Amino acid sequence: MSLFPQHIIARKRDGHRLQAEEIAAFVRGATDGSWADYQLSALLMAIFLRGMTAEETAQLTDAMMRSGVVADLSHVPGIKVDKHSTGGVGDKVSLPLAPMVVACGVPVPMISGRGLGHSGGTLDKLESIPGFQTGLSLDAYRAQVKRIGCALIGQTKDLAPADRTLYALRDVTATVECIPLICASILSKKLAEGIDALVLDVKFGRGAFMKTLPEAKRLAEALVAVGRAGGKQVRALLTAMDEPLGRAVGNAVEVAESIACLRGVGPADLMEVTYALGAHMLILGGVAQTTDEARSRLEASVRDGSALACFREIVTAQGGDARVVDEPERLPAATWQVPLVAESTGFVGDVDAMAVALAALGLGAGRTRAADRIDPAVGVTALVKRGERVERGAPLCVIHANDPTALAKAKAALARAIVVTDEPPTLPPLIAEVLL
Amino acid sequence: MSLFPQHIIARKRDGHRLQAEEIAAFVRGATDGSWADYQLSALLMAIFLRGMTAEETAQLTDAMMRSGVVADLSHVPGIKVDKHSTGGVGDKVSLPLAPMVVACGVPVPMISGRGLGHSGGTLDKLESIPGFQTGLSLDAYRAQVKRIGCALIGQTKDLAPADRTLYALRDVTATVECIPLICASILSKKLAEGIDALVLDVKFGRGAFMKTLPEAKRLAEALVAVGRAGGKQVRALLTAMDEPLGRAVGNAVEVAESIACLRGVGPADLMEVTYALGAHMLILGGVAQTTDEARSRLEASVRDGSALACFREIVTAQGGDARVVDEPERLPAATWQVPLVAESTGFVGDVDAMAVALAALGLGAGRTRAADRIDPAVGVTALVKRGERVERGAPLCVIHANDPTALAKAKAALARAIVVTDEPPTLPPLIAEVLL
Repeated sequence: MSLFPQHIIARKRDGHRLQAEEIAAFVRGATDGSWADYQLSALLMAIFLRGMTAEETAQLTDAMMRSGVVADLSHVPGIKVDKHSTGGVGDKVSLPLAPMVVACGVPVPMISGRGLGHSGGTLDKLESIPGFQTGLSLDAYRAQVKRIGCALIGQTKDLAPADRTLYALRDVTATVECIPLICASILSKKLAEGIDALVLDVKFGRGAFMKTLPEAKRLAEALVAVGRAGGKQVRALLTAMDEPLGRAVGNAVEVAESIACLRGVGPADLMEVTYALGAHMLILGGVAQTTDEARSRLEASVRDGSALACFREIVTAQGGDARVVDEPERLPAATWQVPLVAESTGFVGDVDAMAVALAALGLGAGRTRAADRIDPAVGVTALVKRGERVERGAPLCVIHANDPTALAKAKAALARAIVVTDEPPTLPPLIAEVLL
Repeated sequence: MSLFPQHIIARKRDGHRLQAEEIAAFVRGATDGSWADYQLSALLMAIFLRGMTAEETAQLTDAMMRSGVVADLSHVPGIKVDKHSTGGVGDKVSLPLAPMVVACGVPVPMISGRGLGHSGGTLDKLESIPGFQTGLSLDAYRAQVKRIGCALIGQTKDLAPADRTLYALRDVTATVECIPLICASILSKKLAEGIDALVLDVKFGRGAFMKTLPEAKRLAEALVAVGRAGGKQVRALLTAMDEPLGRAVGNAVEVAESIACLRGVGPADLMEVTYALGAHMLILGGVAQTTDEARSRLEASVRDGSALACFREIVTAQGGDARVVDEPERLPAATWQVPLVAESTGFVGDVDAMAVALAALGLGAGRTRAADRIDPAVGVTALVKRGERVERGAPLCVIHANDPTALAKAKAALARAIVVTDEPPTLPPLIAEVLL
């Protein structure tokens, strides 16, 4: 077997299964620079068009995970469980979820990403808390998980470095939307965290990466198979992403909503997804047998304040101003907070998640390029939900802006994104399927 | 229509036909560096796997041709005709062919390449003539074609620069064997020469790029279609390349054989292919109506010495020592010239062109990498041809070597490459088909 780049590329180009050694050579090439970028991208395109078997995808994931440090959390007792979402609009679930699960006795080591394009990022949201540090070293991460059961940090340079190189290339060579490559990218990072189990939130719909349930299901099945091949317990929920999750889209505004959620007063859809994901995390974590039992425990952690206390502890541990937990007005606030009012009475027929995301992006809540800076204060709150009744003149949402031009644009865009109809719409279930 | 590289790549990836503007953007990107190498290679792989229509291929060829200077030979009267071979072992046809055709009144502007791998290069052969210069400027080329009807030069930097970039990438990204890309690479350079018509020698067999006749025919048909789309008269011959063409493989030894050919005493197969290609060149050049008439004229040019005189003129014009034409012993000669003898009496059942080529490469007659230097003196001569009778102890070939280790290796390799059998083999026709 030749391990020359062009021979490995040719084998995949011709539709062959790559051997583990060939996949390892490719990942090594991406990590140490021994493959040229143009050879990496040629193989990425060949993989895109020829596909990879489940076994190849698992080998790719494993090689990418081992391209850097694999965190060792064996010093932390218990089954370590994380959650990963494929990304949606208003998806702040990680923030209330991690403290609830930790409060129920399951450690949650969580390494998250930043937002890009229409999809928000957990790190950006957390960093809207004054002082909150997400750039912990792996040692600090391990120590914090041991001490308080949770750390919410960003990817360090030593974690799956091959993924960084390959992801940057995929973005500019039209090789992003490829299930084996998506699986390997997501799971190589997640498996390098040192977890034992993983619950996936695979979103589908207008505001998600996968536009339809069947597509999302194919991705979810592949993720579950590859995660299991990596020796982890994995479950996946398929959840709808046609309207934003919750009523807030932005950064500080989503932190505030997460805190409301931890107090048990978050929007119903956000509570539902958080509890559903958390229930499977508790089961995988070995502290509950059934989803009903798990859900009761999660609800109790909210009721008795232990989940909120845990969040406070995490914020403090990571240098953040924990007073925001009780005084959310300490979060960055925008200069203008302007309601958008309904022009007619009726039912909310539609709230286009993608349009809301782009409006928030226009306000400065997100990035169009990785180097962009975000404005933590801006965004949208008090969004109406589909099926709700609204009166003419009542607010459809509140726009938080720091720039009058951006405000006007967002207002116009949101007026188009939120449709009021005479008849109430039929609402599909929020959680379409669970892959156990 | 977006002309961002990733959008163009995505369109081809998804199997769409590219628009002329998209193809032009790609070629411009390859020429001016505005596309990164990894984007070029991703699109090359997508083209490899998704294909290109005849129209797209013609547009790609045209854009690549126009990426640099297109030579203007309108100052040269007559229909300018060139020949291109897809490359074979012992294929020195250009050397006797060009002077014969010019002697018959058809100008032959010929820009050739160097050898790489098992395939020899016209420029390397010519440069074994002491003093012969192939690095003429385009102006000198144009002047010489005008003055003596022919110039045999190498590709200049201003000619189809996009091809240089793309070819270098294809070589290391497993995207070479792709008919649209091969067509565009060959024809963009040929059409930039300033020719009116082109005869193609598309080889098939063990010693050729295309291993089978059907593959070669697909390539030939594509080349003819794209050449015609470029406004040129084009014909293609499909010729066998299982044993070497002629009896000599190397550089100086092939020049000597070419001179023998111009004297009418070359090996039969070499004479046949040369006359066949020349006949179609004369017809396209408008100086003969039928292949019989054309062939008579070519034979006459050999008989009356005008073809040889023309070769002498070209050698002189390009700074070479024209005395080699009459005294081939002035060509570089190897230290060892050792016969390989038959171990049994019988018929030559096989002479494996690829094995002979690799033996010659091992002697130093070719390059494994573009930067390698070649030894003009080494190679193989007096090769037996398939079907010939040989006596035990009689020579099967003569090995020309400048290194005893390389000599021993070549001897062993050639002893395996030349098979003597009891029964004469069935010989397929040398010229399988002509595409008019």
